[in-house]
Amino acid sequence: MFEYLCLRIKEVGVRSIHGVPGDFNLTALDYVKKCGLQWVGNCNELNAGYAADGYARVNGISALMTIMGVGELSALNALAGSFAEFVPVIHIIGMPSSHAQRDRLCLHHTYGDGDFDVFWQMSASVSCMTVALDCPLTAPDLIDKAIEACSIRSQPVCLLIPADLIRAPVSMYPLTNDPLDLEIPQNDVSNETALVDAIMRQLALSQNSVLLVGGQYSVRHSSTGMGEEVLALVETLRIPVLTSASGKGIIDESHPLYAGLYVGSCSDHPVQDLIESADLIISIGNIQSDLATAGVSGRIDSSKMIDLQRDLTYVRGVLFANLYVKPILQMLVARKAKGTCSSFSGPMRRGVGEIILKETPKRTCGSWLGSIFLPAKSDPIRHDWLWPVLGSWLRNGDVILAEAGTTSFGIWKTTFASGTTFISQYLWASIGFTVGACQGAALAVRDSPNPHRRTILFVGDGSLQLGCQELSTMIRHGLKPIIFVICNNGYTIERLISGPDEAYHDIQPWDYCKLPAVFGARPNQYRSYQVRTKDQLRHLLAQKSFGDCPVLQVVELHIPQEDAPASLITVTQALKNCNKG
Amino acid sequence: MFEYLCLRIKEVGVRSIHGVPGDFNLTALDYVKKCGLQWVGNCNELNAGYAADGYARVNGISALMTIMGVGELSALNALAGSFAEFVPVIHIIGMPSSHAQRDRLCLHHTYGDGDFDVFWQMSASVSCMTVALDCPLTAPDLIDKAIEACSIRSQPVCLLIPADLIRAPVSMYPLTNDPLDLEIPQNDVSNETALVDAIMRQLALSQNSVLLVGGQYSVRHSSTGMGEEVLALVETLRIPVLTSASGKGIIDESHPLYAGLYVGSCSDHPVQDLIESADLIISIGNIQSDLATAGVSGRIDSSKMIDLQRDLTYVRGVLFANLYVKPILQMLVARKAKGTCSSFSGPMRRGVGEIILKETPKRTCGSWLGSIFLPAKSDPIRHDWLWPVLGSWLRNGDVILAEAGTTSFGIWKTTFASGTTFISQYLWASIGFTVGACQGAALAVRDSPNPHRRTILFVGDGSLQLGCQELSTMIRHGLKPIIFVICNNGYTIERLISGPDEAYHDIQPWDYCKLPAVFGARPNQYRSYQVRTKDQLRHLLAQKSFGDCPVLQVVELHIPQEDAPASLITVTQALKNCNKG
Repeated sequence: MFEYLCLRIKEVGVRSIHGVPGDFNLTALDYVKKCGLQWVGNCNELNAGYAADGYARVNGISALMTIMGVGELSALNALAGSFAEFVPVIHIIGMPSSHAQRDRLCLHHTYGDGDFDVFWQMSASVSCMTVALDCPLTAPDLIDKAIEACSIRSQPVCLLIPADLIRAPVSMYPLTNDPLDLEIPQNDVSNETALVDAIMRQLALSQNSVLLVGGQYSVRHSSTGMGEEVLALVETLRIPVLTSASGKGIIDESHPLYAGLYVGSCSDHPVQDLIESADLIISIGNIQSDLATAGVSGRIDSSKMIDLQRDLTYVRGVLFANLYVKPILQMLVARKAKGTCSSFSGPMRRGVGEIILKETPKRTCGSWLGSIFLPAKSDPIRHDWLWPVLGSWLRNGDVILAEAGTTSFGIWKTTFASGTTFISQYLWASIGFTVGACQGAALAVRDSPNPHRRTILFVGDGSLQLGCQELSTMIRHGLKPIIFVICNNGYTIERLISGPDEAYHDIQPWDYCKLPAVFGARPNQYRSYQVRTKDQLRHLLAQKSFGDCPVLQVVELHIPQEDAPASLITVTQALKNCNKG
Repeated sequence: MFEYLCLRIKEVGVRSIHGVPGDFNLTALDYVKKCGLQWVGNCNELNAGYAADGYARVNGISALMTIMGVGELSALNALAGSFAEFVPVIHIIGMPSSHAQRDRLCLHHTYGDGDFDVFWQMSASVSCMTVALDCPLTAPDLIDKAIEACSIRSQPVCLLIPADLIRAPVSMYPLTNDPLDLEIPQNDVSNETALVDAIMRQLALSQNSVLLVGGQYSVRHSSTGMGEEVLALVETLRIPVLTSASGKGIIDESHPLYAGLYVGSCSDHPVQDLIESADLIISIGNIQSDLATAGVSGRIDSSKMIDLQRDLTYVRGVLFANLYVKPILQMLVARKAKGTCSSFSGPMRRGVGEIILKETPKRTCGSWLGSIFLPAKSDPIRHDWLWPVLGSWLRNGDVILAEAGTTSFGIWKTTFASGTTFISQYLWASIGFTVGACQGAALAVRDSPNPHRRTILFVGDGSLQLGCQELSTMIRHGLKPIIFVICNNGYTIERLISGPDEAYHDIQPWDYCKLPAVFGARPNQYRSYQVRTKDQLRHLLAQKSFGDCPVLQVVELHIPQEDAPASLITVTQALKNCNKG
């Protein structure tokens, strides 16, 4: 049974399975290698779950294996994040044998009461489909349905496999004769037409419309996503396009119609003007969470918005349900929406023009435009300087991760190169997420047809401590991300919310530079750096051998404790007000 | 409201609150110190949950604070373990403000759908009571009820506190006038009498009875537990007493009636004989999990057993429900049960006598009886040698933790000194548990009236990797446990179950000796040792400065990869058979 599952997992493009071995999934591991897949073997299940999420965000889909109870519950927070942010993870849970469940044996990893259902019910609540593979006859069909649902609905699914059935033979007929059907279902034609008509009408009526692209994973997804459709729509409508925080990088930031990042009151002024004066905002795959809108204050009025989500759309507040958005976008492009473009002149154009005319630095491998940002020597690094500077060092195709906190807000001031994959949780915002996710993302890059892209992680010191051991997994698999650790003694985002000088925000000071060595990296397997001044950082970024990622690299980036990105200060003020009630 | 909660937490004897700060609980942290409590500030929530469990197992009860969604789900596996093994943890979850919940705002740490209930419903499933503190008028009563339930039912409770109500004033009247009522409720008198009569009848009929004491936390609990009642019963009945694996240490192993450890087919022969020839087994607080019974094969037939659980009893299979066991034991003692003792002669006595007559080494601080076990020099350390040797080095009052796996089975061959507190999960068996639990246990010892007891952790290398960062928390708080890391390249228990040579059992080799330094310990704050031979270990154990725990100490104990305790081999064979179906 597990062999069939592995081969289907391989069919959808997964090359590595994340997880931690456990007594109920051990015999399954024998099939992983046999089926041409790699077993990752993470240090713990939460990190494994994060890694599977990161792998899926680069690869399109991923697989995670845990065991009942202890393992699946440890991974639950990671899967809830994938569920919230529409990341497709195939979660396989190794269960006790069928007879042990049937006889309600007093097994370990249970409450000792014979109840084997209480745990998967929790996993099911963070999955869009849960199947129990308790019969070899039905297993192939259930496996196919679950993987198809995972891909199409772009959320985790959960497969329960009893230990005694892992080796059970099943029919391989579907595998050899029916490839998985990963196409999204056909929309109801009349409802679809009604929605497209409604959107066309709104476009025709609008004088100043703007597109806003979010990072809900169904948009960003490299294969089943809507990147192409969104771009085609942008170029057909020829209206300015903004991205939300989670959508950063989906639209090439050098595209002539790209008008900037909309993050509520933290947006640049032209972007705020653009949004405020628009009479119609076409939002695609955007979740207006408090973090993404600089506090809920930055939310867009639904009466001004066409809000296209994965499989439902609100047209100025009117719901069109059960309609997949991808074909809607295709139809809109096909009908060209010519009527709306005529209105695209007037005051908006100036704002957009200004943005279009801004210098977009060209990037080549290893180039360094540091002279633009030349400050006085030995200056400490501050966020307002750091994030714009980093933009010039980035390359086409980089995979960039920013941890919820200082880095996910700071990076709003960093210009991305073409084809950037950006990973950050602006909705779930689980601290520690990016450390595991970085392992998964780096492995997905290596498993891909374009394995030389760089994986770059920006993470705070407090966040790194949550999941530090996954550096060990990176070393074990020879992965070579660059990890920038913002060292400022703890939880800055929380320091800004309450009691900035309280000791509960502080963390134990670690020697991050030596972490790889302690985790078993040989001297030639890693490099680490302590960077305290602007000059030091400029010098480091200018080194081709640094930017080319020959080995895993850890950069301690020391920033004064009281310093924070301006956007973070705005957002935390909003969070503080919200907490007050 | 939170001040009231803190003062009640203090009233039940908690001195330190575990957890990780987060945006919804920050203002609460200001009250922790103000109320004379300590904030621990763990590295991550799973470890914080484990630490709270460890603290409760030493202190009697503990408190943990997380935030909604991300934090509480990360801690869920730890709390499920506390729930399964009856460990009382007061779990406080910081929630978004009341108005944000009421208005169903699209907040971070949610699915973005305005549902704030989906998460606590999962936490509730690992709690014996869940209360939402959403009104200052009702909060004091709900807080009291929850803490009382936690203590009396000896399981986690969950308190949800919205961020805007943390500072809300509440009536302090109950606090100053009504101390918490932590007494277990009165049993129904007629049912209680019926049960005691039934037990007395069985005792009178029995020729060869034996007591079996398990470690269900309601038994072991230092204050609300039943240690005294169990001992009084043992001495009144004067029948041989065994402990199960989880009950190890509850009965002083030098007690004249102590007859050994019953762990199914892994028991010593006299113990097996004792159980097999007994016509009545009085089991108290014992969970016959597969791990505790050397595979389910070691289960005791219910027709031979009086099975006393926390609040229910089976007398040879007949259920007496809703009766707290503690007063039952007191009544049994009071009625002296004289009739049963006369039968205590015959074949059993010989077995017991043999055990009673065995040399029980006297322990004084730093004494070392190593000469008993003197083997050839430079021998590698093997489990069959290691665990008995360690017994002679242990001291009265030690707190000993053994991780599920090699160490929790190996330690069956270690004789404990008087007053040992033993912490190991034979039911939930979550790997990584003991690292966090060790931090919590060591802190509970320091918070106790007897702060000079030692905390000693035995953990495998694979398990340590799951939660390694909590060494940082130990260092931060100046805790001084001795941590023995069994270094044998990975998951031995799983190697024994399937594919012993497969790479998926291997782990990345770490430099455990340098972990404390990387986690910020100054040279005078820790010591670490690499031990590879019997001589080296003997030498180390003989050093008074090692045994006196002046600083945190890490001992790498290198053991050949293929070696395992005999008991582990037996147990894993049973697990393997169970997995096969």
